Amino acid sequence: MKEQYSGREVLITGGLGFLGSNLAIRLSALGASVTVVDALVRGCGGNPYNLAPLEGRVRVIHSNIAAPRRLREVIRGAGIIFNLAGEVSHIHSVRFPKRDALLNATAQLNFLEECSRTAPGIRVVYAGTRQIYGIPRYLPVDEDHPVCPVDFNGIHKYAAVMYHLLYARMSTLDAVVLNLTNLYGPRMALSVPCQGFLANFLRKLLIGERLEVFGDGRQLRDPVYVDDAVDGLLAAGAAEQLLSRMYNLGGPEPLAIGRIAEIASRLAGLEPPLLRPFPPERKVIDIGSYYADTNRIRRELGWAPRVQFEDGLQRTLTFYGEELHHYLPSGGEEPHCQLDTFVPQKPQTVAVR
Amino acid sequence: MKEQYSGREVLITGGLGFLGSNLAIRLSALGASVTVVDALVRGCGGNPYNLAPLEGRVRVIHSNIAAPRRLREVIRGAGIIFNLAGEVSHIHSVRFPKRDALLNATAQLNFLEECSRTAPGIRVVYAGTRQIYGIPRYLPVDEDHPVCPVDFNGIHKYAAVMYHLLYARMSTLDAVVLNLTNLYGPRMALSVPCQGFLANFLRKLLIGERLEVFGDGRQLRDPVYVDDAVDGLLAAGAAEQLLSRMYNLGGPEPLAIGRIAEIASRLAGLEPPLLRPFPPERKVIDIGSYYADTNRIRRELGWAPRVQFEDGLQRTLTFYGEELHHYLPSGGEEPHCQLDTFVPQKPQTVAVR
Repeated sequence: MKEQYSGREVLITGGLGFLGSNLAIRLSALGASVTVVDALVRGCGGNPYNLAPLEGRVRVIHSNIAAPRRLREVIRGAGIIFNLAGEVSHIHSVRFPKRDALLNATAQLNFLEECSRTAPGIRVVYAGTRQIYGIPRYLPVDEDHPVCPVDFNGIHKYAAVMYHLLYARMSTLDAVVLNLTNLYGPRMALSVPCQGFLANFLRKLLIGERLEVFGDGRQLRDPVYVDDAVDGLLAAGAAEQLLSRMYNLGGPEPLAIGRIAEIASRLAGLEPPLLRPFPPERKVIDIGSYYADTNRIRRELGWAPRVQFEDGLQRTLTFYGEELHHYLPSGGEEPHCQLDTFVPQKPQTVAVR
Repeated sequence: MKEQYSGREVLITGGLGFLGSNLAIRLSALGASVTVVDALVRGCGGNPYNLAPLEGRVRVIHSNIAAPRRLREVIRGAGIIFNLAGEVSHIHSVRFPKRDALLNATAQLNFLEECSRTAPGIRVVYAGTRQIYGIPRYLPVDEDHPVCPVDFNGIHKYAAVMYHLLYARMSTLDAVVLNLTNLYGPRMALSVPCQGFLANFLRKLLIGERLEVFGDGRQLRDPVYVDDAVDGLLAAGAAEQLLSRMYNLGGPEPLAIGRIAEIASRLAGLEPPLLRPFPPERKVIDIGSYYADTNRIRRELGWAPRVQFEDGLQRTLTFYGEELHHYLPSGGEEPHCQLDTFVPQKPQTVAVR
């Protein structure tokens, strides 16, 4: 990958977030010249501290991709774009659907329109989500699985996925989509509410609180360690000719959520998890079991997940052990969704450091 | 249907359009009290003359459903909503994707949010489109067919379809979707560009111009006479308990587009149609053959198409023979898409007549 990225101008949207910052750090280590765009929209998980390891070696622009005209110069200068900006929370989207529409659909359309005009044909790697498929009709879920999102987040992410595929089809952008499953690892947002069960588990592990599992704990997931997801993004960005435009990226093996909680509790030295009934607002957007069929991405991009869950979680706990005050400033109190803090911020003055 | 609708307060969005006006006229004949909301967005086909038969017997509100707060009283007073507002042109959407996003997705989300708060549980019948399925994987296309829109219009209409299904699933609205195929009939917009091949054929027939068919003319479609579509909407609105939330509505039989052109040319006394290669901008959004599997709507709503194409087209030609100057004021010149006229209008003062 060093050959592919050394000296290259790389733009990462959402680069102060969990996945984006890990990608930025890796790209910087590969010798790329990294520019990050992030509006730090409250609730989306961006954290300036995530890029502390790159102090002075990354350009950070505080701006919203929904208003991309001010990014024109940055887009023009980029050799490749990793497009990770967005809101991942299904729960937030059900509470604030218009906000989700703006952040995940409208913003992406505006951004891609600008990219297609300012840098026609540029490679854009987009972080899609398994949520577009909704409740799986069969497992594992491949790229031909019918889509049927069950929440606003899934509807809007699907629109964004299709925007990318349509620009690729019209040959105005060299776009490719990776549909990601549940990620975990260092720099995950822990003090932002409703970031999924893995972030919630992790927060509790770190403050020594017993884990709770909704339902019978038998639902399957295939957690992906963030370094593996970064590998997938880099592979999609580096492929000279893309055989496909959409890939499902998943973990090394399906695990029951109850089992995930057991492993995690044991690693953290906690009592075994408790089973609890589903809260209604979560039940309505629950999709049952999911794990990805990763054959296409293995075959065409040579990617494979390398980190087993137990190993990845141990690395994650080690990371937070040293950094906890940057990620749980409130000391681990359960974060709450607050309506008034969820208005997307206006684009701010461009700040370069 | 008279029992179901007589004396009922009915709200129709997009009620100055082709389908909406035919529905309004029928509902009025059934004794319903009809209120129409239409922003007359240029390019969307609304035409105040469409409701001339109801002069004095319909309330018309010029307002955009994208800003639904001013419609609160109207929504509160409604017993049922037929939600037909939107832009149908695939070509427009490829040229002006942000405009299409606003008209077909954002506006619908805003409107449904308002409806779910102001009139929770109200029946909302939405006019979806076959375009959400994209290129059919099999024929006829039933409701379980995977979705894969191939243009912005399809992406945004699919978002709107899913909004309706999600509100229904959350039990905040009693929403139901009919995915329509190619409609034709009286009050079709003829002086608005890019309204599909049937509107284009009809305009040419009426001015005596020879028809042209793109490609080999073998692609199948199942044109629906507008009265049949109105029957479907009324059935979906009247069903006491809905067994499903989405129905595909199609014509009485699949016909090759070349055959449709032949029938039409013969009825209008014109020479047989010419075959022409696809223009590139149309090829990219072409979906090949489509016709709907109407088993579900037949079984569950008791609906069936009643008007054969030749009969429906004859009725249509008769209608326009008497009304042509209201629908082709320019004398039949081919309409052109103009960028500057395609900005959605701001909501206007509420006008009641």
